[in-house]
Amino acid sequence: MKVYFAGSIRGGRADAGLYHRIIAYIQKTDTVLTEHVGDLNLQESYVDAEVYAQDTAWLREADILIAECTCPSLGVGYELAYAERYNKPCHIFYNATKVSLSAMLSGDPYFHLHPYRDEQEIYAVLDEVLQR
Amino acid sequence: MKVYFAGSIRGGRADAGLYHRIIAYIQKTDTVLTEHVGDLNLQESYVDAEVYAQDTAWLREADILIAECTCPSLGVGYELAYAERYNKPCHIFYNATKVSLSAMLSGDPYFHLHPYRDEQEIYAVLDEVLQR
Repeated sequence: MKVYFAGSIRGGRADAGLYHRIIAYIQKTDTVLTEHVGDLNLQESYVDAEVYAQDTAWLREADILIAECTCPSLGVGYELAYAERYNKPCHIFYNATKVSLSAMLSGDPYFHLHPYRDEQEIYAVLDEVLQR
Repeated sequence: MKVYFAGSIRGGRADAGLYHRIIAYIQKTDTVLTEHVGDLNLQESYVDAEVYAQDTAWLREADILIAECTCPSLGVGYELAYAERYNKPCHIFYNATKVSLSAMLSGDPYFHLHPYRDEQEIYAVLDEVLQR
């Protein structure tokens, strides 16, 4: 499957290591269109209009969106609504011991929510989501 | 005009006072559907599905969306994409001395961007946006 992985970039990189591990886990069997989100030394070198055009093209191309939503992010919120508009299955992971997810996401019946307490829980759910 | 004001709730309330002042300024001549976003003692007492249903109904009803995007927020990102889908004019304010706005917002040609350095600049732009 072609996976659009969504994580915070300008909203904060505190979870970049976690994104990196999730992306690597997905890549064992599937393609991640947005591998750069997990780049621990990410250097943004594109103009914003190009980023927007590329990311929305990837969203339309993707088979599924997987978002890590523990760190608040305007871009991830936008991407989730965009993916919903194009009827892409959306799976949202967040650390329930750290944050309360936005009601605009948790209250939207379209999204599949996966609160976790321990990172290892993410990988078990991913095996199901990716139909391994 | 009916204004949907968008600001961070669960993403962080550091700017709640600023939201309160912006909402009060809009209310001098127009209606703010989401007055609670500027409530300094906001108590969330609704279930998430009700919040989502109410907020999306207000987004469809609104004439315009005005968002303060200095504080990253999944909900505000979602609301902006939702409003774009329904062709509502969207005006984004953010303090350019504090943050770099998400490329998914700054790179989207649909949005009207209003970076500011000083809070007073917001009110001058609002007078134009609200056609006073």
